[in-house]
Amino acid sequence: MSATPLPASPSHGPAPLRLGIVGLGTVGIGVVKIIQNHADLLAVRAGRPLQITAICARDRTRNRDADISGYAWVDSPAELALRDDVDVLVELVGGTEGAAREAIELALDHGKDVVTANKALLAVHGQALAERAERHGRTIRYEAAVAGGIPIIKAISESLAGNRISRVMGVMNGTCNYILTRMQSAGLPYETVFEEARQLGYLEADPTLDVGGIDASHKLAILASLAFGTRVAFDAVEIEGIERISIDDINRAADMGYRIKLLGVAQITARGLEQRMSPCLVPSDSPLGQLEGGTNMVVVEGDSVGQIVLRGAGAGEGPTASAVMSDVIELARGVRMPVFGQPAAGLAAPQPARTAIPAAYYLRLTLADKPGALAKIATLLGDAGISIDRMRQYGHTVGGSAPVLIVTHKTTPEAIHHAMELLPRTGVVEGDPIELRIEEV
Amino acid sequence: MSATPLPASPSHGPAPLRLGIVGLGTVGIGVVKIIQNHADLLAVRAGRPLQITAICARDRTRNRDADISGYAWVDSPAELALRDDVDVLVELVGGTEGAAREAIELALDHGKDVVTANKALLAVHGQALAERAERHGRTIRYEAAVAGGIPIIKAISESLAGNRISRVMGVMNGTCNYILTRMQSAGLPYETVFEEARQLGYLEADPTLDVGGIDASHKLAILASLAFGTRVAFDAVEIEGIERISIDDINRAADMGYRIKLLGVAQITARGLEQRMSPCLVPSDSPLGQLEGGTNMVVVEGDSVGQIVLRGAGAGEGPTASAVMSDVIELARGVRMPVFGQPAAGLAAPQPARTAIPAAYYLRLTLADKPGALAKIATLLGDAGISIDRMRQYGHTVGGSAPVLIVTHKTTPEAIHHAMELLPRTGVVEGDPIELRIEEV
Repeated sequence: MSATPLPASPSHGPAPLRLGIVGLGTVGIGVVKIIQNHADLLAVRAGRPLQITAICARDRTRNRDADISGYAWVDSPAELALRDDVDVLVELVGGTEGAAREAIELALDHGKDVVTANKALLAVHGQALAERAERHGRTIRYEAAVAGGIPIIKAISESLAGNRISRVMGVMNGTCNYILTRMQSAGLPYETVFEEARQLGYLEADPTLDVGGIDASHKLAILASLAFGTRVAFDAVEIEGIERISIDDINRAADMGYRIKLLGVAQITARGLEQRMSPCLVPSDSPLGQLEGGTNMVVVEGDSVGQIVLRGAGAGEGPTASAVMSDVIELARGVRMPVFGQPAAGLAAPQPARTAIPAAYYLRLTLADKPGALAKIATLLGDAGISIDRMRQYGHTVGGSAPVLIVTHKTTPEAIHHAMELLPRTGVVEGDPIELRIEEV
Repeated sequence: MSATPLPASPSHGPAPLRLGIVGLGTVGIGVVKIIQNHADLLAVRAGRPLQITAICARDRTRNRDADISGYAWVDSPAELALRDDVDVLVELVGGTEGAAREAIELALDHGKDVVTANKALLAVHGQALAERAERHGRTIRYEAAVAGGIPIIKAISESLAGNRISRVMGVMNGTCNYILTRMQSAGLPYETVFEEARQLGYLEADPTLDVGGIDASHKLAILASLAFGTRVAFDAVEIEGIERISIDDINRAADMGYRIKLLGVAQITARGLEQRMSPCLVPSDSPLGQLEGGTNMVVVEGDSVGQIVLRGAGAGEGPTASAVMSDVIELARGVRMPVFGQPAAGLAAPQPARTAIPAAYYLRLTLADKPGALAKIATLLGDAGISIDRMRQYGHTVGGSAPVLIVTHKTTPEAIHHAMELLPRTGVVEGDPIELRIEEV
């Protein structure tokens, strides 16, 4: 913000901040509506009026939930990025390549700032884009890219800037959380709820981005960069999706006082940067365990602040548009931060490390109806140094196989992965066994 | 932040931001330690080095948990505020009048920015100070003034700036929450836990500030101003402390699935601005109900974002110093916002309104052992339009009186207050009856 506060009256005040919006889907229209409905409020808070000058979307004739007739319609994102009457490019198209990336690069090259909700682009090309922004004295803001309306980008890069941050974790994909909580509450199998979610429009065009944990990992990689001052390293995230979670897993976890959540954890240890996204068991009565539907929660731990928890809607028109507006208002106020909270050249190359911190594990496997089968498994685990806390064998099915549920005492991920490789070779395990980490958060 | 990112190397980079710290208690020393221990990290994030040049506290010889020999010792806050080698006054003394206020006013008048944790000063003199800051083109930042390490000032004034905010509420006094949760967990009476808290150093010199709800109300009034664009109106907060809460209330609330919390609520309704701070019953399994010890939680509701919840340590050296550092780093980055998020002249004079939204209420009273006593009470409530959900009379004590517990259906605060006035006049109620609002948050 400039040193002298700007006059409050928009009519005689400073020049408006002129926005060009690319993408008029749910979020884009949400942004248009906020700017139209709260013009006075925004001008007072931002110190100057916000004005949409140009818009661009795939289909001009589509019926939209807002009057866009007052804005210049531009046919291509690149053209919009080059317009003289656009100060800030608001990119709400998505995708790591193509139109979105091209428009952002053009905008930066031509001295415009960028606001985007594009987590994939930042997770994959974040370093190059940050360097590009700095070369031109511009910035990219992306509060909407992670956890919807939750102000986690600002919290890490500004509010906790006095802290050495040790860990960031949370539930950051509302669609997965919707699927997992809906399976639990309705007692429905994964496939049924997945189909429901698709019909409700909750899934990305490529649903693997959601249920495969990729979207959430994009977000985790961005938060890790901000928190630890490292270059964004999406490739180094250990990713596991929720596709293997069965209604049986959910019910059995519930019996033991747990919920299954797609949990992301990024932390700095002596071994390096650990980033993992995987379904985990968390206590049912913990704040994470109680998280319902599309709600997100992010937990940050810093050396001075201790633990901070932020919760809110992780997606949807209003929450995501709210985050976009936060970025737009910051730019209107004249605030321009480096993209990852510090000059891009100074971001360290991370040393990726696999998760090594011990935890209890939940194992589910199907035993063939053979004499001594259970003993074989118990022996194998014992030989791998894994000690069993609880084991339960369910009745044999007609087919002659029996589900077995095991909860281990704390053990290393290495020991578990070794055991998971050996299990199929025993000749008594049918199908793929499943292992889930238990996080006592 | 300036348009061109600043060089990362402090040695050849821009001039340091020079801090003068007034007050070297827990928080002040916490700030000194962060600046000493994280100098490189802070310089990179802030874009320039942070340098303490001068300090001022009551007792120069006191043994402190940090080496302060490198800083100029100044005998009076006013003198520090006037020094040429101080860019930012960090005020950590507290109090609405005297040295703190004088130093802040002097600093502003002489072109320095201010960072403070002084909620009382801002709640009482916020408008005048904001106007003063603007006259001199300076600002006052106060993230540490509300809810310790939780970044609630930034969340409301920046992250949610695109929202029309309807309600802010939360638990904002860690000492009261400590007392209430400790009474519950240890089964101890109020007086005993109050004395424990005093010995642990949790209480202000004047404990009424904590247990009387005044400190929390200072915070609530500040948040209301930020959220609603109104002048801070501490005098208009309806305040009730926790002094009347007995271990019986806590136990009986627990039996019904509730916890008692000192809850602050500020909201805009058609009738005006409601601000109240009072002990309330909240569901035991709700996020607010689960809040233990000194932890704070703030909930904000906006028209786009929906509901956002922030949780963290509400006090203590590290969390509060973390919040102070957030403000210092923002100033180092060149960010300078109006004190209450918009020009002070534009802040509306609030129209205070008493709480009118209906709720269920918890009533506790002591009945004399007289025939028809309970019937009298029930009749009185019925005549007042209050319908009873649950009523329980406990056994008569040796003295011949019996505690009675009543939970009402939803009713207006007006009806309850009317009934509370009439109850003593029935001749069958001994002592002061108690009423607590039940918030289904």
